[in-house]
Amino acid sequence: MPSIDELAISTIRGLAVDAVSAANSGHPGAPLGLAPAAHVVWKQMKFNPQDPNWINRDRFVLSNGHACALLYSLLVLFKYDLTVDDLKQFRQLNSKTPGHPEATDTAGVEVTTGPLGQGIANAVGIAIAQKQFAATYNKPDITLSDSYVYTFLGDGCLMEGVSSEASSLAGHLQLNNLIAFWDDNRISIDGDTAVAFTENVPERYRAYGWNVIEVKDGNTDLEAIANAVKEAKKSTDKPTLIRLVTTIGYGSLQQGTHGVHGSPLKADDIKQLKKGWGFDPEAKFFIPNEVAEYYAEHVAENQKVQKEWEATLAQYKQKYPKEGAEVQRRLDGKLPEGWKKHLPVYTPADKPLATRKLSENVINALHGNIPEFIGGSADLTGSNLTRAEGSVDFQPPSTGLGAYDGVYIRYGVREHGMGAIMNGIAAFGANYKNYGGTFLNFVSYAAGALRLSALSHHPVIWVATHDSIGLGEDGPTHQPIETLAHFRAIPNLSVWRPADGNEVSAAYAAAIESTSHPSVIALTRQNLPQLEGSTIENALKGGYTLVKGSDKPDIILVATGSEVSISVGAAEELKKQGITANVVSLPDFFTFDKQSYDYRKSVLPDGVPILSVEVMSSFGWSKYSHEQVSINRFGASGKAGDLYKFFGFTPEAIAEKAVKTVNFYKGKEVFSPLDKAF
Amino acid sequence: MPSIDELAISTIRGLAVDAVSAANSGHPGAPLGLAPAAHVVWKQMKFNPQDPNWINRDRFVLSNGHACALLYSLLVLFKYDLTVDDLKQFRQLNSKTPGHPEATDTAGVEVTTGPLGQGIANAVGIAIAQKQFAATYNKPDITLSDSYVYTFLGDGCLMEGVSSEASSLAGHLQLNNLIAFWDDNRISIDGDTAVAFTENVPERYRAYGWNVIEVKDGNTDLEAIANAVKEAKKSTDKPTLIRLVTTIGYGSLQQGTHGVHGSPLKADDIKQLKKGWGFDPEAKFFIPNEVAEYYAEHVAENQKVQKEWEATLAQYKQKYPKEGAEVQRRLDGKLPEGWKKHLPVYTPADKPLATRKLSENVINALHGNIPEFIGGSADLTGSNLTRAEGSVDFQPPSTGLGAYDGVYIRYGVREHGMGAIMNGIAAFGANYKNYGGTFLNFVSYAAGALRLSALSHHPVIWVATHDSIGLGEDGPTHQPIETLAHFRAIPNLSVWRPADGNEVSAAYAAAIESTSHPSVIALTRQNLPQLEGSTIENALKGGYTLVKGSDKPDIILVATGSEVSISVGAAEELKKQGITANVVSLPDFFTFDKQSYDYRKSVLPDGVPILSVEVMSSFGWSKYSHEQVSINRFGASGKAGDLYKFFGFTPEAIAEKAVKTVNFYKGKEVFSPLDKAF
Repeated sequence: MPSIDELAISTIRGLAVDAVSAANSGHPGAPLGLAPAAHVVWKQMKFNPQDPNWINRDRFVLSNGHACALLYSLLVLFKYDLTVDDLKQFRQLNSKTPGHPEATDTAGVEVTTGPLGQGIANAVGIAIAQKQFAATYNKPDITLSDSYVYTFLGDGCLMEGVSSEASSLAGHLQLNNLIAFWDDNRISIDGDTAVAFTENVPERYRAYGWNVIEVKDGNTDLEAIANAVKEAKKSTDKPTLIRLVTTIGYGSLQQGTHGVHGSPLKADDIKQLKKGWGFDPEAKFFIPNEVAEYYAEHVAENQKVQKEWEATLAQYKQKYPKEGAEVQRRLDGKLPEGWKKHLPVYTPADKPLATRKLSENVINALHGNIPEFIGGSADLTGSNLTRAEGSVDFQPPSTGLGAYDGVYIRYGVREHGMGAIMNGIAAFGANYKNYGGTFLNFVSYAAGALRLSALSHHPVIWVATHDSIGLGEDGPTHQPIETLAHFRAIPNLSVWRPADGNEVSAAYAAAIESTSHPSVIALTRQNLPQLEGSTIENALKGGYTLVKGSDKPDIILVATGSEVSISVGAAEELKKQGITANVVSLPDFFTFDKQSYDYRKSVLPDGVPILSVEVMSSFGWSKYSHEQVSINRFGASGKAGDLYKFFGFTPEAIAEKAVKTVNFYKGKEVFSPLDKAF
Repeated sequence: MPSIDELAISTIRGLAVDAVSAANSGHPGAPLGLAPAAHVVWKQMKFNPQDPNWINRDRFVLSNGHACALLYSLLVLFKYDLTVDDLKQFRQLNSKTPGHPEATDTAGVEVTTGPLGQGIANAVGIAIAQKQFAATYNKPDITLSDSYVYTFLGDGCLMEGVSSEASSLAGHLQLNNLIAFWDDNRISIDGDTAVAFTENVPERYRAYGWNVIEVKDGNTDLEAIANAVKEAKKSTDKPTLIRLVTTIGYGSLQQGTHGVHGSPLKADDIKQLKKGWGFDPEAKFFIPNEVAEYYAEHVAENQKVQKEWEATLAQYKQKYPKEGAEVQRRLDGKLPEGWKKHLPVYTPADKPLATRKLSENVINALHGNIPEFIGGSADLTGSNLTRAEGSVDFQPPSTGLGAYDGVYIRYGVREHGMGAIMNGIAAFGANYKNYGGTFLNFVSYAAGALRLSALSHHPVIWVATHDSIGLGEDGPTHQPIETLAHFRAIPNLSVWRPADGNEVSAAYAAAIESTSHPSVIALTRQNLPQLEGSTIENALKGGYTLVKGSDKPDIILVATGSEVSISVGAAEELKKQGITANVVSLPDFFTFDKQSYDYRKSVLPDGVPILSVEVMSSFGWSKYSHEQVSINRFGASGKAGDLYKFFGFTPEAIAEKAVKTVNFYKGKEVFSPLDKAF
């Protein structure tokens, strides 16, 4: 007779294998190998399937997202909003059980995973957020937050650089609330890990400052797994890596080979597996009653735990009304009332400043007014200007460098890790609006995390300074050319390139209010004037007519960021030559596209040739302009002023191209690029 | 009296400091700290400034590229094609001394560095290439290749994930020809590395399988540095990391602080430095004669070494005429004569195949015919189909898994590391044409390396399979949407998306013949028919009219890859409705843009509305089309066929949009998008 635990594990395995088989697509190997650990971990986790967003739940992150049949099986067994019928739709269009876990589609999926290495880095972010939240609100007599984050990861996750970056930082930050299980099954897609991955992982993680625990038999030794978790929880100053030695596809005729990794098991193999578990080999998606009850008990216990926590919160609100109200506001996803009045506003009389400096002004203005607005930089604090005056660093108190309720994160030179960690902080909940700074060009290092921010609807903010050839001497290795095209082509991503102080404030206003999309804010190194005609309200439309040369101008110049003021200069040049020009500032395509057709058409109407001006690739600009002043090559090292001249971004050079544009379109019928056939 | 070595080191330091000062921009800290190690290393390196591409030279890679004033000073002192006048133009537009080292601009700069972490990964690639070259051509009695690669890296490089990936692989591959110096100065831009970087680096590198040597005083202990190099060279099966403890800005009044990292020294500080070295504090760019002579001696010795090597090569050619001819051919940068005749050619009678499979056919056909055509996959060999039948893995012989003359590299799940390593292999020389496979979506993980391939003119090849929603069930985390827009916006990058077998052969033909640009070849998971009208010659134009519906069609459908055959189907649908359509296949924008205006205009003429069809973002397509069938959202998990239907990529759905397009433009004057005002 198998024990109830063994029965439960066989049930998880059976559901996972049947789901993959029904889809005739998916990954049965990891679920078979990891079911015992999943069972043991979930059996002691704190969560409520009826309230999957409860802030003090323990979180589970499946970093090896291809093993999602395992996760979906758990969600079904613990009675999240997912059923056996959903498992039958595994990997089918519009199901709640897509081929990799998507947090936006399935309750109980904490973060969207699949791209390897991201999940463990998300888990680091969740752990940071939990520490920060706990340190901010826990009181000596009342603990509001004490949850753990568990993550499963495979060899692939460990090979990815993004996990190295995040793991090194997790060690530095002493995140003892993070418990990671390495599925050490010695198999990856290319076969035995001996072909490419022979490093000593435990030693590497010890070098990062982690606690490493070994479980020699992850296939059957449930006690060892449970003890490892217990031991991990004793850690006071280190995250824990549990090395779980397993057999991929445990029990399958192909166990221990990569044949079982990414292809459904054969029908006969499934039958022998089920026979081995004592199940009817013909029955599919079988859930023994005693297993259902066993998990239901755990849920019932957990619901009690949540009830108690709610009583604690009520008590907290009474005893600490100010903090209590703040916690409630954050749990409700509301920003502090009137927060926007802190946003700086400028007039043309204000002095020219770099938009990175104007961004610092916003951060300074908001610091202290929005406690959930936290952030950091990938070792470019003094260049990104991301640290609010007087803010405290998020650091282990023992370092003497800060505290866990600090709001400023020193990410180190780890852009990709930072991006994935930011996603984790957002995923924690509690309304965190978190930002990370680096040079615009190096946001590309984090492309893998950035697209997941957009796919997962995380409202994270990239403070992306040094946004063009205007950075000057550092040269082409640091100067973005393709970068904005890349980001603008990502669905659900705001890409702001503000032209002055009011537009910077608008970019932050939109980015902080967002609940469903990330934002990149591209900022200059060099000074820009405060523009006549710019307002926060105008910029919040994503694009607007800044200079109205006439009701029916000869040309429209549309520009972003540092090229807006140059285009204003070009319009003045053109005026001297009897040519009227409107100047349109278009700080964010994504926001502009959401405006009404009539509004957009009023900005970019028929009958006028439109010339766009931006110091990088023209790629994608035909969406809004007929002609482009741009840079379709790599940049160069030199003084910013020299580069602007060299690449033809002066009022005179632009005016010259405007004249050519006006002449070219003379006598032709000109249609707005906004109008489309379907 | 300072020793000649001390004098030389002071000279390096002086030149670097003066260059930064002349530019009033740059990084003096690292050159001051690293000058002693640079001097010791270069004094024993094998290279010839008169012949900087000599294949058996030792290579030096400055991974912390911001320290380039150090590198330029060395190049001046060793009399590469760089002078004090060039140093005076440091960081100025069009100088040979840009703000970060650029291999395309300056003889003696091995690879373009600056983006942190890349250089050390490039060095791993160089080491791989050297091992492969040596194992392929060295004979028991004649050694043609035995060079080392040295690299300097800072804390920033060590924090980046790309260096972790490459370092782990270097350990696995036992690259004992790689010697890395970690400039352990405990300072990064955010200040003390204690704020973010407290891991135990030596332990981590030991865990990777490296040899770690400590030099406690890198500021003055020249003997210890020299001994460390000697010891490193004794390693038979491990790369070496030399931990070099230095003081950033050594000797400056600001030494040991981040104030000395990225800003020029004050005039007074420079004076006191020079005084300390026994130099005239007012003299700039001072090179004592004895230092010039000292370095000249080393160069003279090295030139003798190269002469001897040339004699060895001559002897080799006599004794091993076949290999000798091959070596010479490769050194001349010529591909084997007639190699292109091996490229597979197809007719519509051939069966439908996935383009990834057609790519495998090319790789199989070229394997053995082009010895310098080597490559691998980031742990997706069975999916990318990148391994030629019967090829040997590049592995340390002791593993029993392959040999150093193997041509197939098991990169592990390390896309960014792979990208940077590929750049290093290309940088080694000997005509290496190397490729790396992963899913198209995960080439984005390597965005940082990819843009450097393009900037540095490395003809590397990405075999990017599973190139769209056509991959099916893996879902949106794996399905590229923005990816082609991103890559097409990168200057100097070919982005092929072939539609059938002939186009796949064309993509490889162009990619392998390239000497100055990298290529991404996007390939399907799903089968595609062999098209009527496709030929290698046609495809080599980057775009061509595949189906000529009429001389003056009602509409042109322009598509790439898997959407070409669907568009052919749409044209047939349209014909039934009395609408004539041309179908244009546009497999590579970059190549198409290089064709004559007349040719391009013949493909995309005036007077016909053009509808583009591609299963991803429309961003950038307005460059060639008036209207777009595209996907401007993330994909979905489901069967490929279901997804194509759901997203409207069937002949019928496209025909419907084509009809709308024809109607929309009826009566309007339609201009080719190719025509521009300037």
